[in-house]
Amino acid sequence: MDTVSTNASFGGTQGVYSHASETCACDMTFAVYTPPQAADGPVPVLWYLSGLTCTHANAMEKAGAQRAAAEHGVAVVFPDTSPRGEGVADDDAYDLGQGAGFYVDATEAPWAPHFSMNSYVRDELPALLRAEFGGTLDLDRCGITGHSMGGHGALTLALVNPDRYRSVSAFAPICNPHASDWGRKQLSAYLGADEGAWGQTDASTLVRERGWHGEILVDQGEADDFLDLLRTQSLIDACAARGQDATITMRPGYDHSYHFVSTFIPDHVAFHAAWLGRG
Amino acid sequence: MDTVSTNASFGGTQGVYSHASETCACDMTFAVYTPPQAADGPVPVLWYLSGLTCTHANAMEKAGAQRAAAEHGVAVVFPDTSPRGEGVADDDAYDLGQGAGFYVDATEAPWAPHFSMNSYVRDELPALLRAEFGGTLDLDRCGITGHSMGGHGALTLALVNPDRYRSVSAFAPICNPHASDWGRKQLSAYLGADEGAWGQTDASTLVRERGWHGEILVDQGEADDFLDLLRTQSLIDACAARGQDATITMRPGYDHSYHFVSTFIPDHVAFHAAWLGRG
Repeated sequence: MDTVSTNASFGGTQGVYSHASETCACDMTFAVYTPPQAADGPVPVLWYLSGLTCTHANAMEKAGAQRAAAEHGVAVVFPDTSPRGEGVADDDAYDLGQGAGFYVDATEAPWAPHFSMNSYVRDELPALLRAEFGGTLDLDRCGITGHSMGGHGALTLALVNPDRYRSVSAFAPICNPHASDWGRKQLSAYLGADEGAWGQTDASTLVRERGWHGEILVDQGEADDFLDLLRTQSLIDACAARGQDATITMRPGYDHSYHFVSTFIPDHVAFHAAWLGRG
Repeated sequence: MDTVSTNASFGGTQGVYSHASETCACDMTFAVYTPPQAADGPVPVLWYLSGLTCTHANAMEKAGAQRAAAEHGVAVVFPDTSPRGEGVADDDAYDLGQGAGFYVDATEAPWAPHFSMNSYVRDELPALLRAEFGGTLDLDRCGITGHSMGGHGALTLALVNPDRYRSVSAFAPICNPHASDWGRKQLSAYLGADEGAWGQTDASTLVRERGWHGEILVDQGEADDFLDLLRTQSLIDACAARGQDATITMRPGYDHSYHFVSTFIPDHVAFHAAWLGRG
């Protein structure tokens, strides 16, 4: 692992690192915010998965998570949203290929050799962090959140792997990708045209079938231009059908931008901190 | 004035606007954050002047000012750092020309026709805001802050125009441009090689000669790569010589980035809010 940069931030450290990923078969970059409380021992970890077109940097720079994380003593990890590089497949569309990994493990050409963001976020990156940051990060206490495509990633990773995450929330998540053009297009490309091969990649279906052991926190802007693609109502309906504990709040006037995310991230960090023993 | 964009943010509105500037003889873009308290009547205004290479957008997106501004009921205005456009003079260096207006009114070719950022920030933009946002912004209650080159701008604008600003602070300001390569180069270009023509453009000199009616708040990172150019000690010495009320704090570990600015902006917004009657 190489250190790309470190910056003091709210009494802690905002670092950016790169490493040769086996899972994605390319160099991957990620960011870790370590709060000042880590000086006294390992702190719990909040995973923040970003949306379409983003790298590790967008939320790190614009979401304002560090202030809240330092208040609560929680670390925040910002992975990239896809493999990248010259040898990695890509597409001209903003919503397929590099910057649009959708947090699945691709099985189809030309994506399969590199696009394994599910395994990368779930397994490889936590193992790397455990090895490299074992003294400051407690990888046994993880929460997960994300924005848009990253909200889809957070919900599906948590619902499928409840042993890995103690808490889950999302900002404007893609809630029902199996019924949306933000989902069907990408899952067809990465996992094949046969919908039967898409597996556990739809948060609304997962809530109906499996549920979640705790509360699910979701914020969604009512002025979001992408409401039709996000299909928030499908998640609301699934929670109602399941009897799932969930707080899904429609926020009048808010759109899909980081202005929306930054407004509500203090609430989300506090929510995760409480579930992670930093309440 | 044209509205470029508006986004809901912390219960208020982050807007971006453009207008044909007479002072700069080109179209200029700026941002205004209006906090939720503006719904109950005009709120005081904090001017945030940005540093080299920045537009209105960098601090708007990365400084995290909105959360603090919404807590205190203060608006924040983010002007651009120079005139821009095809017909506007420029230089290949990052620290001269577009993105590097230095908040002075240029008298020399090729800069004089457009580079009048001092008059623009002091006169034209406040007048425009008074006309366009009279119901929400109280332009008679202004504070001013800034980062790096913008810290120089904030200090010099306040010290020269104490009738216009009730409070002043700065993040890692250029404190003594008449003795720095961040200053001598640009003032020579914009105002002429004769140092006698540079006028009241050096904050350390202004503190010694004029002082400020209130407290001056400055934060400076000790790990800032540009300490030699910023010359913080000159400002400290000037405040000591004048007996100027000032809190100039060296922050161990902090650099010149927005990670530094965002860490301390809650303190600065609270400082200005107190001076502006929103304490």
